[in-house]
Amino acid sequence: MSLLTVGSVAFDAIETPFGKTDKIIGGAGTYIALAASFYNNEQSIVSVVGEDFPRAILDELEAKNVNLDGLQIKAGEKTFFWSGKYHNDMNSRDTLVTELNVLEHFDPIIPESYQGVEYLMLGNLSPQVQAQVIERLDTRPKLIAMDTMNFWMDIALDDLKKTISMVDILIINDEEARQLSGEYSLVKASKVIRAMGPKYLIIKKGEHGALLFHHDSVFYAPALPLEEVFDPTGAGDTFAGGFMGFIASTGDVSFENMKRAIINGSALASFCVEKFGTERLMTISREDLDSRIDEFVALTNFDMVHVIG
Amino acid sequence: MSLLTVGSVAFDAIETPFGKTDKIIGGAGTYIALAASFYNNEQSIVSVVGEDFPRAILDELEAKNVNLDGLQIKAGEKTFFWSGKYHNDMNSRDTLVTELNVLEHFDPIIPESYQGVEYLMLGNLSPQVQAQVIERLDTRPKLIAMDTMNFWMDIALDDLKKTISMVDILIINDEEARQLSGEYSLVKASKVIRAMGPKYLIIKKGEHGALLFHHDSVFYAPALPLEEVFDPTGAGDTFAGGFMGFIASTGDVSFENMKRAIINGSALASFCVEKFGTERLMTISREDLDSRIDEFVALTNFDMVHVIG
Repeated sequence: MSLLTVGSVAFDAIETPFGKTDKIIGGAGTYIALAASFYNNEQSIVSVVGEDFPRAILDELEAKNVNLDGLQIKAGEKTFFWSGKYHNDMNSRDTLVTELNVLEHFDPIIPESYQGVEYLMLGNLSPQVQAQVIERLDTRPKLIAMDTMNFWMDIALDDLKKTISMVDILIINDEEARQLSGEYSLVKASKVIRAMGPKYLIIKKGEHGALLFHHDSVFYAPALPLEEVFDPTGAGDTFAGGFMGFIASTGDVSFENMKRAIINGSALASFCVEKFGTERLMTISREDLDSRIDEFVALTNFDMVHVIG
Repeated sequence: MSLLTVGSVAFDAIETPFGKTDKIIGGAGTYIALAASFYNNEQSIVSVVGEDFPRAILDELEAKNVNLDGLQIKAGEKTFFWSGKYHNDMNSRDTLVTELNVLEHFDPIIPESYQGVEYLMLGNLSPQVQAQVIERLDTRPKLIAMDTMNFWMDIALDDLKKTISMVDILIINDEEARQLSGEYSLVKASKVIRAMGPKYLIIKKGEHGALLFHHDSVFYAPALPLEEVFDPTGAGDTFAGGFMGFIASTGDVSFENMKRAIINGSALASFCVEKFGTERLMTISREDLDSRIDEFVALTNFDMVHVIG
């Protein structure tokens, strides 16, 4: 099926307890598209970069069958740049530098060839831009998923709530769910947030896995316990990309299939954190992914049938 | 089969954001025995109380088929008392009062009728007392599980390591695993701790579930997402009691069966936190437990078999 990703294509500079990088390739849109490229879809992206962005990376995305007609390259402008430093526990980080550059006045133009797209993944971006994309599509996609972050809750809560009301699935982390809902209990938070519009809510809990809420049903997918989280950057976007890539490729938006999609997203995210940036995602094969999914099955699988004395 | 629990039978006074109690019944041994009583075993306990402990509670334990021959009642002495206050997030607490009383010079006497017991659960107690119990059993039980806490790591690390080297399963929480191993990653911590002796390690992560490590295998059981944790006191002991009660009743110490035992322990712990102290455990039925276990199956169950396009 067809999957459109909206999200930043950017430069990152990252410092973790294990080392630091110069400017490397990052951005929510990049991670989402790379993760989704493991599934058989007509993929496309709406984004913007400056003239400083390397052509070779765009070629790599095209080689992975990502249509770049909607990726604007702004002459004379610079690509979005983010720099951050992770603390020792890897669960918190400080932003060192944010240069919006081309993102400051981003007008998400939808190429005519993108019209009719069936699945839409809105990566973390200004909620106004996210809403514009939905409004500019002639027909509403079969499923719209959306990511966001605390930053937009702080400075653009009304716009954010409007955009949230337009989507089917919101994918955020536990801290964001608590801030958005004002509830500490994630069960209570899920009710408050779903009352804002989305029928489905996925709460990512990092090393503690992810929860999927829908009506009265809950699914809890664990994360793979890892020896080391080398760099968490992009793990959430990779999760979302794997989730939507799987859903789109199967064309099945049932709760049961969303469980499988979450396991796929979790497996891809578990690779993402093994190296800096997109490095690991660029090198793993479909076979690597399948064998990681088998690890998830082994990790969580149990059979209650046992004769009790 | 036969299951011996060693652990405190005590008074607690608890304050949570939802309210506070006067002196109520508590103690690791009490929670473990109550949780294990949902399974068909010859249960017994080694513990000590003062003459202030209510006979009615001992009668309730006996009514649940817990043999109390090993429970000493010290004339003229007072029962162990603990008082604590939970913070708003329920993940941390302050100890307000600890009165050791009868526990200060506790000599764990093993009645002759307890010899030959097949399963042993050592609740959190001084590691010297835990070791004494193992040494005083004529034949080594088929499976020995042990709980402990940070306190013993701070003041009696050598004794603690000696006792840990004598058991098959250590059951501790994530914070304790990190302190005991000096490793932040739970995968690394599990290796360090299992090198101390236990072939199995269970790391409890509260609302984030529990991990079971053995050789190269890992099992991750989620916790049931709850609207409200009313009082976490005793949840870890209840988990351990459900775990060992199930294992003993099935007589099966395989890794596969330990997974089932963890789900049983998690289900019982999810009841424990719904009310103050032992109140909820005292009132639920076997049917309540079975239906909670079904909820865990629904929560975690997924089937990866799906034709991908």
